[in-house]
Amino acid sequence: MKRVAVILSGCGVFDGAEIHESILSLLSVERHGGSWHCFAPDIDQLHVIDHRTGEVTEETRNVLTEAARIARGEIEDLATLNPEKYDALLVPGGFGAAKNLTDFAVNGAQCSINTHVASACRAFAHAGKPAGYLCIAPTIIPMIYEKGVKGTIGHDTDTAAAFNQMGGEHIDCDVDDIVYDERYHVLSTPAYMLAGNISEAAEGIDKLIRKLISIA
Amino acid sequence: MKRVAVILSGCGVFDGAEIHESILSLLSVERHGGSWHCFAPDIDQLHVIDHRTGEVTEETRNVLTEAARIARGEIEDLATLNPEKYDALLVPGGFGAAKNLTDFAVNGAQCSINTHVASACRAFAHAGKPAGYLCIAPTIIPMIYEKGVKGTIGHDTDTAAAFNQMGGEHIDCDVDDIVYDERYHVLSTPAYMLAGNISEAAEGIDKLIRKLISIA
Repeated sequence: MKRVAVILSGCGVFDGAEIHESILSLLSVERHGGSWHCFAPDIDQLHVIDHRTGEVTEETRNVLTEAARIARGEIEDLATLNPEKYDALLVPGGFGAAKNLTDFAVNGAQCSINTHVASACRAFAHAGKPAGYLCIAPTIIPMIYEKGVKGTIGHDTDTAAAFNQMGGEHIDCDVDDIVYDERYHVLSTPAYMLAGNISEAAEGIDKLIRKLISIA
Repeated sequence: MKRVAVILSGCGVFDGAEIHESILSLLSVERHGGSWHCFAPDIDQLHVIDHRTGEVTEETRNVLTEAARIARGEIEDLATLNPEKYDALLVPGGFGAAKNLTDFAVNGAQCSINTHVASACRAFAHAGKPAGYLCIAPTIIPMIYEKGVKGTIGHDTDTAAAFNQMGGEHIDCDVDDIVYDERYHVLSTPAYMLAGNISEAAEGIDKLIRKLISIA
């Protein structure tokens, strides 16, 4: 059974990990014969957004504590992730991937990446183990792999331009498809960058995870 | 296209709606040709539980605001639900169903039910429209339907006894199966009362929703 490490970034599309993408990912991992193991950085979220109104609140919430909701408590501090114990890496999207794992949502192509996120992602890359990035999370790819690495965030021209500016090669991609960089064994799919509903998001995510586990 | 009203009770297994069950439900509704429409009561949660440690925190969170995370903001106050606009009702589980929709988790068979939850559930029952309850949410069934209504929470003897004490007739049920009371068009399945992983929960939930939409 292939062991997939999953990096979550909170719990909720506007300030954390996208919940639909995260659950669809865990379901697909199980259905394709893998086991999932959730991790998140033990840091405060950049924002807490009221998901009913879309407004920023005064609250402070911790990324690992909130991500534990998605994982039903079965989660560990990302700083403790030992890449030797896992066969593949998966990073769902949601604004948390661009607010908490990196600050791409604020600084675009000039963004920074959390040290434990960078360390975990680079360890899988250097070991030649496959990794999958969903939705906005592929903006992490150029920070991890060498110049020219292929990835997708769908069709959004500004985000695609930032992806290229950071050193990647953006490939336009539909919601039901994936981009696979064979040199680096890195996969990406647009998910809710394009999806209009859960079923649409599920198509690309399931295709990505089937591939991820088959090459792990 | 059958329109399914979904009542959420927060966002997280220990103090709100069970996230896996909720997302699997929405996915199944779409896949069986329905549309989903989320609602939650605009009240404070009974508890806020740290899902990493399992401990009660000092925080206060609103059920509707947190449930909006599961619904990506597409949610309305349960008090505004007009049952005439929907063909079926669905209530996912999680402790929120027994802490926020009712207080079954605290008071067992002597529990109370939130007025807007009772009003919505009874409206579907009186109209003869089908309803599905997952996990611990079937403890609501005896508060809505007449004496002898059939339902399941799986195999747990204490919860089954309370279900019967409230006037229902509990039927033991495995995780991949459902109980259907044909008189009242009410369905239930154990989901995470028994499931050991997402795939197991998905089996019973998908079976229930396929039936729910076919009779709606």
